[in-house]
Amino acid sequence: MEKPENSHQDNLFFTDDERQGLYKTVFNRRDVRGQFKPDPIPDNVLSRILYAAHHAPSVGFMQPWNFVVVRSNDVKQKVHSAFIEANEDAANMFVSEKSKAYRALKLEGILESPINICITCDRSRTGPVVLGRTAMKEMDLYSSVCAAQNFWLAARAEGVGVGWVSIIQQAALQQALNIPEEIVPIAYLCVGYVSHFYDKPELETKGWLNRTPLDDLLYFDQWGDKKTDQEDTLVKQVIQDRNFPDQ
Amino acid sequence: MEKPENSHQDNLFFTDDERQGLYKTVFNRRDVRGQFKPDPIPDNVLSRILYAAHHAPSVGFMQPWNFVVVRSNDVKQKVHSAFIEANEDAANMFVSEKSKAYRALKLEGILESPINICITCDRSRTGPVVLGRTAMKEMDLYSSVCAAQNFWLAARAEGVGVGWVSIIQQAALQQALNIPEEIVPIAYLCVGYVSHFYDKPELETKGWLNRTPLDDLLYFDQWGDKKTDQEDTLVKQVIQDRNFPDQ
Repeated sequence: MEKPENSHQDNLFFTDDERQGLYKTVFNRRDVRGQFKPDPIPDNVLSRILYAAHHAPSVGFMQPWNFVVVRSNDVKQKVHSAFIEANEDAANMFVSEKSKAYRALKLEGILESPINICITCDRSRTGPVVLGRTAMKEMDLYSSVCAAQNFWLAARAEGVGVGWVSIIQQAALQQALNIPEEIVPIAYLCVGYVSHFYDKPELETKGWLNRTPLDDLLYFDQWGDKKTDQEDTLVKQVIQDRNFPDQ
Repeated sequence: MEKPENSHQDNLFFTDDERQGLYKTVFNRRDVRGQFKPDPIPDNVLSRILYAAHHAPSVGFMQPWNFVVVRSNDVKQKVHSAFIEANEDAANMFVSEKSKAYRALKLEGILESPINICITCDRSRTGPVVLGRTAMKEMDLYSSVCAAQNFWLAARAEGVGVGWVSIIQQAALQQALNIPEEIVPIAYLCVGYVSHFYDKPELETKGWLNRTPLDDLLYFDQWGDKKTDQEDTLVKQVIQDRNFPDQ
């Protein structure tokens, strides 16, 4: 028997194991650049990951995304060339030592990963007036970002690595994939099984930048209003939980 | 003994239960507007959810987000007034029947939820040149969106509901929270325990829009290049998996 419309979910609360599965995925997701293996991703695994992406939140339920699955080596080569060009420009923007450090980083796995996936945003899908996008015009772009984040998390849960390549000019990416000018490419993802996932983000371990303590980022009621652990029990808890993500 | 830097994660692959926990969270996450309960969220629960948000991916590891935790009823009232104004403008943008349907929807739970949280983006954090933002300038905004999505998922895993309020003018929100002009408010979230989560998104069950079949959104190698289930085994699998999210 089908459930009635507007029926409720059976489980308001999840089990500890289910919750642990979510946190483990969140804390172990990595931006993968250099550990891709050529092994193909089975259709049933990729299908599940794509469904996770498709069930991202979207403003006004517009589901503005498409998924361009890139398997062709020719297309990947074009994208890779566009990356090389943008990366050369980028390296020159950093000064002296930082530029040297930048050039030493591997920042993409376009050719090594068995597939690439471009997640896009069709801003005119469902018409010009979109519920929830009337005041904040970027909400549809943000919806496609949520799809990318869901994709990334589901992939990690499946043991599949993902690297988001953003060092590429939008027009060059559109040209390589034949994406019309009015469609916004949001995320270009390299996708594949990996030899290993690092414990921590590479930019952290390589000394590019440090992880900011979470308690430094919390304000209360008004921008800039911080509280100490003596003044607020949430701040105290956040400081106490500093090792929570190391699981 | 501390692990060496650049050490690897112990578990390349997760257990079926852990993976199931991630998918269950993704498919049962809802945008909550009308089911909030006033019960306070314990500090240890909120701390875990905030850590999930803080471990979102960020371009160049810049972690551009802050979290403004709003508990003050006065501040919520100001935000609510800004919503009312933007919502009236929005209702007038829809035509006749659609406008009537729009006005019948409850679209926020600002005052009923025990806390609201504004996730922001500080675009100048870590300086003007950011690794990964040199070609695509919006990447820092997208990082804060990923933090919002992580927050939303962790909250669902904890049995906590989240509603993203986007029907509000950016300047009005900045004024209510005293956010400087150069800081971008990305997501204004209503957060609290709920009486229930709906099986499906409200805009879907209320007939606003339908869920698009995933196979309609897949292209291969080039924009617009679709394949049938006869031509491609991934398309065949995606069609076969249509009920996968109903778990």
